[in-house]
Amino acid sequence: MSTNSIHGTDETHDTDETILSWAYLSRVAEPPCEQLAELVRQYGPQEAADRVRRGALVAELLSRTAARRHLDCAQRDLDQLHHLGGRLITPDHQEWPWLAFAAFTGLSAKDRPQGRPPLALWAIGPLTLDHIVQRAAAIVGTRSATTYGEHVSADISATLAEHEVCIVSGGAYGIDGYAHRAVLGVAGDTVAVLAGGIDIAYPAGHSDLLRRISASGLLISEYAPGTRPARHRFLTRNRLVAALSSATVVIEAGIRSGAANTASWARALGRVVCAVPGPVTSPASIGCHVLLNHGAHLVTRAEDILEIVGNLGELADEQPRPTTLFDTLSENERRVYDGLPVRGALTLDDIAIASGLAPTTVLGALTTLEIAGLVAHHEGRWQINHVQK
Amino acid sequence: MSTNSIHGTDETHDTDETILSWAYLSRVAEPPCEQLAELVRQYGPQEAADRVRRGALVAELLSRTAARRHLDCAQRDLDQLHHLGGRLITPDHQEWPWLAFAAFTGLSAKDRPQGRPPLALWAIGPLTLDHIVQRAAAIVGTRSATTYGEHVSADISATLAEHEVCIVSGGAYGIDGYAHRAVLGVAGDTVAVLAGGIDIAYPAGHSDLLRRISASGLLISEYAPGTRPARHRFLTRNRLVAALSSATVVIEAGIRSGAANTASWARALGRVVCAVPGPVTSPASIGCHVLLNHGAHLVTRAEDILEIVGNLGELADEQPRPTTLFDTLSENERRVYDGLPVRGALTLDDIAIASGLAPTTVLGALTTLEIAGLVAHHEGRWQINHVQK
Repeated sequence: MSTNSIHGTDETHDTDETILSWAYLSRVAEPPCEQLAELVRQYGPQEAADRVRRGALVAELLSRTAARRHLDCAQRDLDQLHHLGGRLITPDHQEWPWLAFAAFTGLSAKDRPQGRPPLALWAIGPLTLDHIVQRAAAIVGTRSATTYGEHVSADISATLAEHEVCIVSGGAYGIDGYAHRAVLGVAGDTVAVLAGGIDIAYPAGHSDLLRRISASGLLISEYAPGTRPARHRFLTRNRLVAALSSATVVIEAGIRSGAANTASWARALGRVVCAVPGPVTSPASIGCHVLLNHGAHLVTRAEDILEIVGNLGELADEQPRPTTLFDTLSENERRVYDGLPVRGALTLDDIAIASGLAPTTVLGALTTLEIAGLVAHHEGRWQINHVQK
Repeated sequence: MSTNSIHGTDETHDTDETILSWAYLSRVAEPPCEQLAELVRQYGPQEAADRVRRGALVAELLSRTAARRHLDCAQRDLDQLHHLGGRLITPDHQEWPWLAFAAFTGLSAKDRPQGRPPLALWAIGPLTLDHIVQRAAAIVGTRSATTYGEHVSADISATLAEHEVCIVSGGAYGIDGYAHRAVLGVAGDTVAVLAGGIDIAYPAGHSDLLRRISASGLLISEYAPGTRPARHRFLTRNRLVAALSSATVVIEAGIRSGAANTASWARALGRVVCAVPGPVTSPASIGCHVLLNHGAHLVTRAEDILEIVGNLGELADEQPRPTTLFDTLSENERRVYDGLPVRGALTLDDIAIASGLAPTTVLGALTTLEIAGLVAHHEGRWQINHVQK
């Protein structure tokens, strides 16, 4: 970030003025910056970039661009991006997920200052963003996941991926990492939305994982290359995770968590918020239980989520219910059967007394039970038929 | 149940005609029996009993009393009850929990056939029923509880009991047993509602537990002594567990469970239904998750339940939230702090670039951070102050 020089080398591609302007604008103000977006909307990227460079701006935007206005690493950033095999996705591209980002326009005044679409997205990977958002779920949660959370994250993510749902997450340790990894394991689609430059492997321990995501999925960030992840950038990033997904599923989250922040973005954006319950004795599930108490959908299986993000007709099966021969019995037949002792036989009158049913009713029930092979009678006494199959 | 003789011995107490009539009526039809209740309402217990004995009844009631009309063990039952130190609680007694049972009158037509108050309650124990229902919660769940469920049942029940909530349950293995036992352990109040005669220790393995409940709490049943617990009687019993409690809390329940039945009675009776979530990998929690998906309150701590059954003002504390020095920082102060490297120092301009904030804003934030002891500066460069306390 200390050089203003432009490296025009043979590695340079697609560096017309427009894309250079987008790259410059993407870095010049800390996103999201409503005034900058407004400037671009009004004048287009090239004229907007020019005005920022010249400082021909309203006071607020002048202040917000003061620190970086004189830095122009656009060419260097784009060269680095191409070197990594990436692209800068802008509203000029077909790939721009207009529909997903349209939700930001519906935000309430309270959420508006932070609730802006990105200006542009730095991206590496073969998946296309506009395609992904048609069928995507965010799987998010605490970095300090328990074995339970890791298992559930991996299980749900893999199953969703097998049903062609793209799993969006944040590339972090814990829940995020297990989600991404499980999807890669079943050769599914996954997107990591980063809180720093896409050239920065963060966390460092996930550099291999992020590399694998960039090879078969998609790494995206609204931050220019070299931007260091920082606390406020994680929160800002979370709105994109929520916006790109039809549902945000929180697997495990502590009482204060980024996942809860992503969930609140999802709610504000009109997305479905889901949470997986866990043991009430586990601090890692507290955040999920709080979400569930505030209207989140309780989900226990990938199928529950598929019902939400999937197409019509992909409804989850009812939970399987065990059925036995007894389920087919009428109330009276069951009462008569229950009235019989485990061992020994009873007369019709004894059974009537035990069950409280009239003798004629008891006789009818016994007949049905005998046909079903559940009871047997011998010399006027009835007993349970233990040899039933 | 094979004798019609009346044992008028010196053990006989309180055996006036009215109480004998209640005892007779209590056994003569399998409860709940709406026609019998109507007969009692119309003629009073003595005249009603007399009409049943004579068979001067409408056809339906004639059929429902056919099996036991000629049995009269009222005196014997009452003798046995007194021998056990018990009492027959009837609508003639002050102890009758009118208010709790009033909820049955509000039931929809669908629930009405089974949704009747008991005719009378056979009881043993020092607690009084009308007092208990003013502050009671039902703790119910599967007999096949996991260690988790047992722990949560005991923990929640003991804490509620310490807050003078009476714990109502069914005396069964698993969740019920752990609830009762935990309450006895803190010398709290607990009631077991049985699905058979109160003289029958069921399950047999809980005979000592039931004896202890009868010694310091209350055992109740609408079934006359000697009545064997049976499948349909457990379901019928469940409505009383629900009716006697302001809230029914399901700790663990399989997909088919008596606890879910108790919960549905609670809902029908206008009581609050609560469920404790558990691991989605645990079959013992499936029923709880289904309930939560159908509007049950998610509870994780006794305090959540206390808020429901307790008096106004006994509100649960908010979940404790960890707070740190960072929580007191403004958004910009935090961004500036995040902009500093873990090691090394930066100039004001470098920090402005990293944080995307104007240099004047950065300076203001750095000043506040320095006063808070979070940063230090030396020769025009700023760094994180790692020696902060």
